[in-house]
Amino acid sequence: MKVLITGAAGMIGRKLTERIAADGNVGGAAIEVLLLHDVVPPSPVPGSRVDTSDLGQPGATDRLLAERPDLIFHLAAVVSGEAEADFEKGYRVNLDATRALFESIRLMGEGYCPRVVFASSIAVFGKPFPDTIDDEFLLAPLTSYGTQKAIGELLLSDYSRRGFFDGIGIRLPTICVRPGKPNKAASGFFSNIIREPLNGEEAVLPVPEDVRHWFASPRSAVNFLLHAASLDGNALGSRRNLSMPGLSATVGEQIDALRRIAGDSVVARIRREPDETITRIVGGWPQNFVARRATELGFRSESSFDEIIRVHIEDELT
Amino acid sequence: MKVLITGAAGMIGRKLTERIAADGNVGGAAIEVLLLHDVVPPSPVPGSRVDTSDLGQPGATDRLLAERPDLIFHLAAVVSGEAEADFEKGYRVNLDATRALFESIRLMGEGYCPRVVFASSIAVFGKPFPDTIDDEFLLAPLTSYGTQKAIGELLLSDYSRRGFFDGIGIRLPTICVRPGKPNKAASGFFSNIIREPLNGEEAVLPVPEDVRHWFASPRSAVNFLLHAASLDGNALGSRRNLSMPGLSATVGEQIDALRRIAGDSVVARIRREPDETITRIVGGWPQNFVARRATELGFRSESSFDEIIRVHIEDELT
Repeated sequence: MKVLITGAAGMIGRKLTERIAADGNVGGAAIEVLLLHDVVPPSPVPGSRVDTSDLGQPGATDRLLAERPDLIFHLAAVVSGEAEADFEKGYRVNLDATRALFESIRLMGEGYCPRVVFASSIAVFGKPFPDTIDDEFLLAPLTSYGTQKAIGELLLSDYSRRGFFDGIGIRLPTICVRPGKPNKAASGFFSNIIREPLNGEEAVLPVPEDVRHWFASPRSAVNFLLHAASLDGNALGSRRNLSMPGLSATVGEQIDALRRIAGDSVVARIRREPDETITRIVGGWPQNFVARRATELGFRSESSFDEIIRVHIEDELT
Repeated sequence: MKVLITGAAGMIGRKLTERIAADGNVGGAAIEVLLLHDVVPPSPVPGSRVDTSDLGQPGATDRLLAERPDLIFHLAAVVSGEAEADFEKGYRVNLDATRALFESIRLMGEGYCPRVVFASSIAVFGKPFPDTIDDEFLLAPLTSYGTQKAIGELLLSDYSRRGFFDGIGIRLPTICVRPGKPNKAASGFFSNIIREPLNGEEAVLPVPEDVRHWFASPRSAVNFLLHAASLDGNALGSRRNLSMPGLSATVGEQIDALRRIAGDSVVARIRREPDETITRIVGGWPQNFVARRATELGFRSESSFDEIIRVHIEDELT
């Protein structure tokens, strides 16, 4: 099997790359080619090849397809904050480059019909929300990033229906606990308040403890992508985009889980510093889903925030 | 007020043009400029100007905005059957030209923020459907046309949220009774079985009488567009696209209404000629809506199929 990963230098792209290299196969099919693409050089793994380019440049997506990959993970994206700050860049990367990739696949012709796994996001939804968001809830994003992901979903469905490729879009929950350093993303604190105290560092909590959100671990994100890679496309029917399962937890529940696992002295490193702007932004985000279709199709995630913290400790701290 | 209509040579564009010319104003604001655009020459009305061009050509949308219209009706589109038959043309006109228009508006700058009324369609929805489609139902089109309209809706919301223009998308029901000659559209028979018998001609009915669909008259379509033109944008909130009210009726109910209005001898001109392909296509279309938001915002349509036929007789046959 020939595999292409766009956005391979990102956090999830790196973890997916390492997992595929460790497994040596995807869904039982041995890896012949593993092509890693990103706008900055992705870290190679044994046997991988690397392509560093801007997908928005003419010819970039054609070059990636030269060996006709059977499986394409399309993760490349400008993140939410940057797409909001730089309107043109967000549309160029998140919409135009996605469409360029889809068009390059279509124009290959000669029966070429790869599986495309597209990383979408719960940012395709916008408030007001029902108590739980089901598989039939309106796409009504409130950010340019969410708009671009929703458009990617629609294109993926149409190109799949037309038989140009066999696409699956998966809407990732907020990934937590993100490894690495604290960043400026409005969602950063959800990970910071777990990761930093476990590292002996202080973390800032800018929102009240009753704020509720929707989570899955980085390990689950990789599992979702790999499960999507080998799913029977016919089982999906015409609706090709799925909200992934996750865990709905309040910040208070996050902190309780941290206390159970690491004790009061670790929890004491969380410093309350209310921030109205962040509280307002986060207040517009989805809080809870019923991911019925994805669950029926075999996607699985964590069932408690304790489990999410244990996954972080296993994967990052041991 | 300066008004631009794209797609002004189409059936709805023509009726909208004539209505604006007859009224001499939109929402009480007198018409200074009425610019009619289409890819084929639209019929001028007194005081109007005409621009004939392909909106997909570089510079075409910039030229349309030279006089900074206050109100833009964006009706231009390749219809459903053609967008399905010619993939590239559908995307070029329905997606690329729409985006080019939106981009031209954004790049005008200097505080330019026109009202944009975008003609969307119930084709943004795809089966399986609930009994009635409400304002929170998933965008899941099953045609390229529906995909392109759904993407237009998402762009319109994002450009409006960003303050580049003040947009409203209205999802039109199937317009019935369409004037003119029978056409090859799969939906054509809904109008043909009323219009042709009233003209003394035979019409073919290719589906069973229990087929249900969602209708509004051409007069209502024009009313929707004009109501959208002068609506308070703040009343819309962040969800800028609305399913229009309409009438849910079966083919049998259409025929009963025709009998009440025109008698058995007219109904006798409907010839049953079952067509499995058309029956299958129509089986995937929406049948019924609860257009709560649009109704609360003052949009109104017919309340019986008898009324739809009477509107046709008043507007086309008298």
